[in-house]
Amino acid sequence: MSNFAIGVDLGGTNLRIAAVDEGAHLLEKVTLGTKVALGRDHVLSDMCEAIQHLSKKYQGDARLLGVGIGVPGIIDLHTGMVRESPNLPGWSDYPVRDEIIKRLQAPVILENDANVAALGEKWLGAGRHVGDMAMLTLGTGVGGGVILNGKIWHGMTGMAGEFGHMTVEPDGQQCGCGNRGCLEQYASATAVVRMAREAIGAGDASALAKAASSDAEFNAKEIYNLAIQGDEGAKKIFRRVGRALGIVLGGLINGLNLEMYVIGGGASSAWEAFSPSIFEELRQRSMVYAATAPADPLNQWSGASAQVEAGGTGTKTIITRALLGSDAGLFGAARLPMTLNS
Amino acid sequence: MSNFAIGVDLGGTNLRIAAVDEGAHLLEKVTLGTKVALGRDHVLSDMCEAIQHLSKKYQGDARLLGVGIGVPGIIDLHTGMVRESPNLPGWSDYPVRDEIIKRLQAPVILENDANVAALGEKWLGAGRHVGDMAMLTLGTGVGGGVILNGKIWHGMTGMAGEFGHMTVEPDGQQCGCGNRGCLEQYASATAVVRMAREAIGAGDASALAKAASSDAEFNAKEIYNLAIQGDEGAKKIFRRVGRALGIVLGGLINGLNLEMYVIGGGASSAWEAFSPSIFEELRQRSMVYAATAPADPLNQWSGASAQVEAGGTGTKTIITRALLGSDAGLFGAARLPMTLNS
Repeated sequence: MSNFAIGVDLGGTNLRIAAVDEGAHLLEKVTLGTKVALGRDHVLSDMCEAIQHLSKKYQGDARLLGVGIGVPGIIDLHTGMVRESPNLPGWSDYPVRDEIIKRLQAPVILENDANVAALGEKWLGAGRHVGDMAMLTLGTGVGGGVILNGKIWHGMTGMAGEFGHMTVEPDGQQCGCGNRGCLEQYASATAVVRMAREAIGAGDASALAKAASSDAEFNAKEIYNLAIQGDEGAKKIFRRVGRALGIVLGGLINGLNLEMYVIGGGASSAWEAFSPSIFEELRQRSMVYAATAPADPLNQWSGASAQVEAGGTGTKTIITRALLGSDAGLFGAARLPMTLNS
Repeated sequence: MSNFAIGVDLGGTNLRIAAVDEGAHLLEKVTLGTKVALGRDHVLSDMCEAIQHLSKKYQGDARLLGVGIGVPGIIDLHTGMVRESPNLPGWSDYPVRDEIIKRLQAPVILENDANVAALGEKWLGAGRHVGDMAMLTLGTGVGGGVILNGKIWHGMTGMAGEFGHMTVEPDGQQCGCGNRGCLEQYASATAVVRMAREAIGAGDASALAKAASSDAEFNAKEIYNLAIQGDEGAKKIFRRVGRALGIVLGGLINGLNLEMYVIGGGASSAWEAFSPSIFEELRQRSMVYAATAPADPLNQWSGASAQVEAGGTGTKTIITRALLGSDAGLFGAARLPMTLNS
């Protein structure tokens, strides 16, 4: 039996814990609610209990390599502390990693959740055949991660990958980060709903208005459904999503010339509605993309991936959907302790 | 005597060749005009003759490690061919590297000129104490280079670092690359003159109008002089330069979280006029910059560099001028063969 690690996806809503072996087999997955309201110590206890349960169950012939934890927020990698996390109030400046190590007596690695998702997609998902990729996760906000030479690129202080706060419209929508016109203001699920409400307010989106008035929880998924059914008001919103993503991706491609850019997160399920606009923007906005685009970018796997899978150096820039869904973070977290010494 | 290499800066106007030893001593520098009009073969002969002259002169106890050549254009690193170079017509799809190797019987490395300048600044200039940096070169156009772990980051096809074509204003000025609102349209010397002419055309820049009418070669330097003398019309133009640079740098800092960003190239001599706007934009636009900014960014070396020089991991994001001027490319080119096997 091959050794295993435990991956934790500590979300604001769900707390998920999985045991995964080095051969990428999911041994067991536990899903709990994150009882944020009961306080940090309660959540930590729930988490450690589940980790201990799994680690006891699978230890024997196999060795526990460690625990990786994906956290929504800015992590100080040196101290293992959460520096800033809007979804986990009360966790800042608390020695999370050291506290868990004390309870578990095993190596523990804390990592930003978007970085962990990127590592998961690199290990087992869309990026499994490439060495260098960037991932954008479209959810309530927009996160990101960079993988270079197969490893998370942390940057100087562990803050790399904040693609959600790259400027798309210099005088655009005010963002919570203090900037105007951040990608997050055009490509998150939150932004989709805001743009729909703006269109309704402007009176040029009757189908959206009807959907919004009949549903108190009017959300990005409903707007996507309208777009897929052909509603022009809804389609227009996803064209704005694609345009914003295209502007940021074009910049990343021109600047970094990576092999692959992966779009994940819950809102990436609207891929069909926004991706054509991404490619339209890229062809115009990125000379490096223009020089390296696959002949058929929406069906790019047909040609380009064969080349990559054959082990040759890629020469085509691939923009693609994430493959692992919400498990990317779980697998990526489990991967962290496996690559500790490499 | 330590071994040496020969660096070549093949510009559209000047052809400069230098012998530099491993201890970073400039042994000799030769400057020739690049006789582009006489054709590729003529330029190649001039270049090889100068290289041979220098290599004979300094070989003896010392060994020639090879020749590095910085070329303004997109280079195919695998084939050693120029893929695209507006300033060197007739050089595309010609086996430049192999032809020079044949004539010189020494290792030859072709590299994009902005990458080479970044490597020069990393080796001996502003970035000499950091491992990871990006450089923007402001000249007729805007080029760029990325250094990660002390080495040029080429990306998949050698095209990384095209920061000049990152989008700053999605519906802005048309760029030659096909995009609209590229950084190059706001931060190059060419852009400074265009923006001045626009301001003159709009009738709100009398000092600029006077300067333009009295000088057929109205250029960025004159506009800079007016700005430094306090002319509001000229100052406004450099604020636009700084704003555009701030938008792109803010994105790079959020995305990559590098230790240092270096601004070089001829137009960087207007640093005093545009840099305050860079820092103003960055504080607003980059949460990663806000979290890592030196207390006094315009005099940032006082505190932050001491830390870096002490060999500790930097925690401050440094934005600074290049230090080597036009020699960055020459030293960087000479450095290429020295790092061949590292």
